[in-house]
Amino acid sequence: MTTDQPQSDGAPSETYSEFETRVKRIANVSNAAGILQWDQEVVMPDEGTPARAQQLSTLSSISHELLTADETGALLEELESATLSDEQAAVVREVRRRYDRETSVPQELVEEISETTANAHPKWKQAKENDDFEAFAPTLEKLVELKREYATHIDPDADPYEVLFSDYEPYIDLETAEGVLERLRDELVPLIDAIGDSDAALETDAFAGTFEDDDQEALARDVLDSLGYNWNRGRLDTAPHPFSSGTQFDARVTTRFEEDDLLGSITSTIHEFGHANYTLGLPDEGYGTPLGEARDLSVHESQSRLWENHIGRSRPFWEQFLPVARERFPSLEGVTPEAAYEAANQVHDDNLIRVEADELTYHLHIVIRFEIERDLISGDLAVEDVPEVWNDKYEEYLGVRPETDAEGCLQDIHWSHGSFGYFPTYSLGSVLAAQLYAAAEADLGDLDSDIREGNLDDLNGWLREQIHQHGKQYTTQALIERATGEELTADHFLEYVETKYGELYDLEA
Amino acid sequence: MTTDQPQSDGAPSETYSEFETRVKRIANVSNAAGILQWDQEVVMPDEGTPARAQQLSTLSSISHELLTADETGALLEELESATLSDEQAAVVREVRRRYDRETSVPQELVEEISETTANAHPKWKQAKENDDFEAFAPTLEKLVELKREYATHIDPDADPYEVLFSDYEPYIDLETAEGVLERLRDELVPLIDAIGDSDAALETDAFAGTFEDDDQEALARDVLDSLGYNWNRGRLDTAPHPFSSGTQFDARVTTRFEEDDLLGSITSTIHEFGHANYTLGLPDEGYGTPLGEARDLSVHESQSRLWENHIGRSRPFWEQFLPVARERFPSLEGVTPEAAYEAANQVHDDNLIRVEADELTYHLHIVIRFEIERDLISGDLAVEDVPEVWNDKYEEYLGVRPETDAEGCLQDIHWSHGSFGYFPTYSLGSVLAAQLYAAAEADLGDLDSDIREGNLDDLNGWLREQIHQHGKQYTTQALIERATGEELTADHFLEYVETKYGELYDLEA
Repeated sequence: MTTDQPQSDGAPSETYSEFETRVKRIANVSNAAGILQWDQEVVMPDEGTPARAQQLSTLSSISHELLTADETGALLEELESATLSDEQAAVVREVRRRYDRETSVPQELVEEISETTANAHPKWKQAKENDDFEAFAPTLEKLVELKREYATHIDPDADPYEVLFSDYEPYIDLETAEGVLERLRDELVPLIDAIGDSDAALETDAFAGTFEDDDQEALARDVLDSLGYNWNRGRLDTAPHPFSSGTQFDARVTTRFEEDDLLGSITSTIHEFGHANYTLGLPDEGYGTPLGEARDLSVHESQSRLWENHIGRSRPFWEQFLPVARERFPSLEGVTPEAAYEAANQVHDDNLIRVEADELTYHLHIVIRFEIERDLISGDLAVEDVPEVWNDKYEEYLGVRPETDAEGCLQDIHWSHGSFGYFPTYSLGSVLAAQLYAAAEADLGDLDSDIREGNLDDLNGWLREQIHQHGKQYTTQALIERATGEELTADHFLEYVETKYGELYDLEA
Repeated sequence: MTTDQPQSDGAPSETYSEFETRVKRIANVSNAAGILQWDQEVVMPDEGTPARAQQLSTLSSISHELLTADETGALLEELESATLSDEQAAVVREVRRRYDRETSVPQELVEEISETTANAHPKWKQAKENDDFEAFAPTLEKLVELKREYATHIDPDADPYEVLFSDYEPYIDLETAEGVLERLRDELVPLIDAIGDSDAALETDAFAGTFEDDDQEALARDVLDSLGYNWNRGRLDTAPHPFSSGTQFDARVTTRFEEDDLLGSITSTIHEFGHANYTLGLPDEGYGTPLGEARDLSVHESQSRLWENHIGRSRPFWEQFLPVARERFPSLEGVTPEAAYEAANQVHDDNLIRVEADELTYHLHIVIRFEIERDLISGDLAVEDVPEVWNDKYEEYLGVRPETDAEGCLQDIHWSHGSFGYFPTYSLGSVLAAQLYAAAEADLGDLDSDIREGNLDDLNGWLREQIHQHGKQYTTQALIERATGEELTADHFLEYVETKYGELYDLEA
């Protein structure tokens, strides 16, 4: 039973406070580890790894021990039969979920997975470099088995893939996710075909040329300024694989610069801004409990993609931002906002690489991975058959066939981490981004003129109010329904891309 | 009983391994905290403090709990009656010492000290800004009482100041330290007087002018290059109060740049190099136990001061380094190595500020603080009398009287941290630096030509072999005797300064 107000009856309140102290302790250890990881990616000297690995492993086992201690279990039980406020009940729900999962998997299995993935990473890297899938296959086989076993410990009666998926997305059921992915596949394949057949000639060379790193960095700071990034609680650095991390007090962005890819650095910076901006919108007073933590991967990805795609790849954004970019790069003088917009939205239907994909083909890359990993975990697909199935699916959905496994099934790092079930959250993020953006425009009116004026306060205020400030108080589906009045749906995404790309590529309605 | 070789009899070896795992765990938590502190000083956004404070406090209490747990005590007892190798026995000795100290102080007192110092810092800062000692006096009074109480818990029979001193310098007894400080006072006061009376006109304007930060940073990197800093395990950044920190895998240097103080940035960078270079010389295989940790503050400071003073303020260093500096700063074209040497060694007998002091007057600043804090802790001096006693001592030892407490007894941060007993380690470091340098030259021959050629490998090899590689295996006095054949003595320091400054200031022998 829950009520709107915290109860003041002594015992449970004291219990809750003991519980909260424990939860905050775990969060502080994890957040400390987050800083160590940021440090490792961004500033740590090359040879710091051996010590860093031990530090991270120690923090990870301390936080595991604190979470799975008998005291945590006893406190949870006591609180579950107490009268709690909605907020307290949400904290208990979230910690219970993690407690149940972490206590159900034997420590030896956790360690075996951890060791296997640690060794898998260099093997995958080597196999990719040598285009040698067979060298990686036994490791992949082992990881599939271990993660299947892991899932069985968590819920012996459930579909193991569903259990794995729920590690990344606990509150969207797999059936919903699968429905979304199937719709994306069924509707995007013909749309991309139509684009391939279109005679429309997009201007694609707006950002051709070379661009100095230092100037790109200055421009990345301009981008973050214009989006309203809070520098008092953030910073920008470079990392080989851009990411953002941190807490509501300190959410940092990384990006990377390649001299021939200015557009890539801008969109990547905006993407990471979206993540960091979500983190910065979490309530200060929730720091250390799930109330101050982001909802899971799909919601996080909805924020990065809303900013990257709905803002950063929009026409009014380029109307506003191109003059700023021209100040850093006078060579952009002759580029029109329309040309920049077209360059930012070109569909590459012959691209084989997920991370280089456009807004449309991206989801077919995801669908392919999802279908393969689901069948790997169920046992319907043997590891040895992955390359052929991969290539067949690329041919079927995208009309291109990888000539090597390096640019085929070995391209992504995820499986070498044992991360099966992660990929779908990327597409769910895009779908949710469109749904949220539509809801924001329904509430606030058309946002184009705000974007054109570089005034994103209203949109950001809406996101703060509807999403960010709630942390993990609501489950994902409840959060989505509160914010948009609907369950998660691909409708808005499909409408968005059909309108946008229909116009860009001059397709018949 | 100890032997040279680890014993293979089952039980103690298993016990030792359990003990070592525990010790490493504590070290990893502390080293993680070290990274968080570096991050806070160097890269953390301004508003990150509330979360960082909680993270650090959590890590600190976890490492305290791990150390003071009953299991640690039981393992120590068991190992103390087992047959151990010398290395194992040293680890047990060091952990026992920390265990005894941390278990003897009640947790409430630790927390009260921690809270009081947290609040003391802003009060001290404000009092210094307003030159208002009375505003800080009650806090200082409280800190003196708390630290006296703290010392009594650790050893009710000992002189409380001695107990506090041994927090910073566990293996040099206070009597020895006091003897060194008295000798410094007795011999430096007349030497500085003689310098004040000298007619020698040193060239002091070699580094007059303004120097851009970026170029100063490039030069700081040149300095570190020429000293042989291992960039694969280190980095250089700026911080308001330069420090170095880390482990043998990752020991970082910070410095600061002021456009009118090029010399200050060079000497400060060399000083911090000395600290980091010690850390980098600790054995990799000792990481996580006292065998891979630096001996305490005096030895650490001996390393920073050996490099700063015996190398960085030497004539051959400037012969080697001035041409490098001229490449960054063509304005130094007309400066001779001799002029640089003289500028780097000018004695400022009218300076009131410790951190701006030269190699000679520095120690009188320390002696004054030592005499005052010792009497504060013993109760022989009342807090309210500190300003007058401070000023009287400055007049007596240095012939200058501060006109304000801001440039008098409020200048240093240490007492606001409750750090009574810390100051002497600075002077002990200088004294030990001279003793080690003399021993190195006795073993290796005169080092001037090495320095002139920028080849410091032999000296560094000697320091690695004699000091760095031993971690905490030997107690401080044993380490000093092994390396120099003598107990800690001020002889070498006094001989060094008498020769150096006698020549510089043309004093009669």
